[in-house]
Amino acid sequence: MATSEAPVTRIMVAVNESTIRGYPHASISSRGAFEWTLQKIVQSNTSGFKLLFLHVQVPDEDGFDDMDSIYASPDDFKSMKNRDRARGLHLLEFFVTRCHEIGVACESWIKKGDPKEVICHEVKRIQPDLLVLGSRGLGPFQRVFVGTVSEFCVKHAECPVVTIKRRSDETPQDPVDD
Amino acid sequence: MATSEAPVTRIMVAVNESTIRGYPHASISSRGAFEWTLQKIVQSNTSGFKLLFLHVQVPDEDGFDDMDSIYASPDDFKSMKNRDRARGLHLLEFFVTRCHEIGVACESWIKKGDPKEVICHEVKRIQPDLLVLGSRGLGPFQRVFVGTVSEFCVKHAECPVVTIKRRSDETPQDPVDD
Repeated sequence: MATSEAPVTRIMVAVNESTIRGYPHASISSRGAFEWTLQKIVQSNTSGFKLLFLHVQVPDEDGFDDMDSIYASPDDFKSMKNRDRARGLHLLEFFVTRCHEIGVACESWIKKGDPKEVICHEVKRIQPDLLVLGSRGLGPFQRVFVGTVSEFCVKHAECPVVTIKRRSDETPQDPVDD
Repeated sequence: MATSEAPVTRIMVAVNESTIRGYPHASISSRGAFEWTLQKIVQSNTSGFKLLFLHVQVPDEDGFDDMDSIYASPDDFKSMKNRDRARGLHLLEFFVTRCHEIGVACESWIKKGDPKEVICHEVKRIQPDLLVLGSRGLGPFQRVFVGTVSEFCVKHAECPVVTIKRRSDETPQDPVDD
């Protein structure tokens, strides 16, 4: 049986924070993509997969609007950097803990930059077998203003990509939120 | 362990014939998509998956150019229909036989029509957990003239879709061929 000797399948899952205020956790679509991967692909074959969690932090949106950038001292930047780091680690902890509970091997790391560019760059570097992305599943009208990371990655990432749309019953009041 | 009780994951694989003359078999990209599914997703967890093979036959391209359509009698059409059916079954046999060898449950069926429309319609009807499509991986210049089923399905199919690009070392002399 040829398939029984297959090496571990490496699945990259790009994860991000929720945009909902006062909700410092993984976004609804990130969690959806992760749970889909576990339920539909990994199932009970936990030794056959390794999950690679990539969290891309967007520099301009992570804290600058909370402080006066003109008067920000080097120490302000340092504490901001530490806070970003803490938030990123907190986010990844959610996914890594769940993997440990289930017994799926995983790795996780944080990068800064434009998510779509960084994800494609990391795919090139890491060469996973599959990239799983959560998507808000916005309609064409909303997409014009918001743009989607998943559309870009489907076109440009150098590996197979699957986009998991958010379930309609999980859409928050403002569908642009996640 | 929540994932150990997961029901079977149903993966639809759309398959088509090779366009290479005198090569009456599955296309290179269909076989690539199928093998990717077995190696990277199913692995040795053969009881966790069911593969659903959909073959869409395009009416205008299956035989009309071999006969004079003006003088075609009802019997000519009947024999053409039988020949189409035989070719379709021959194609599906390749995939079904391989599944039986490995021990993965499968189903297969043939539909007629525009592949991209029929695939999306069948996804709606069958509701698979994942749709796997092979793709020739054409560049933007070639795509303008050829169009791609996969791009359409990624946008319109009502389930997660993954596109498996043909390996560059398997590209035939004319990359539009498959």
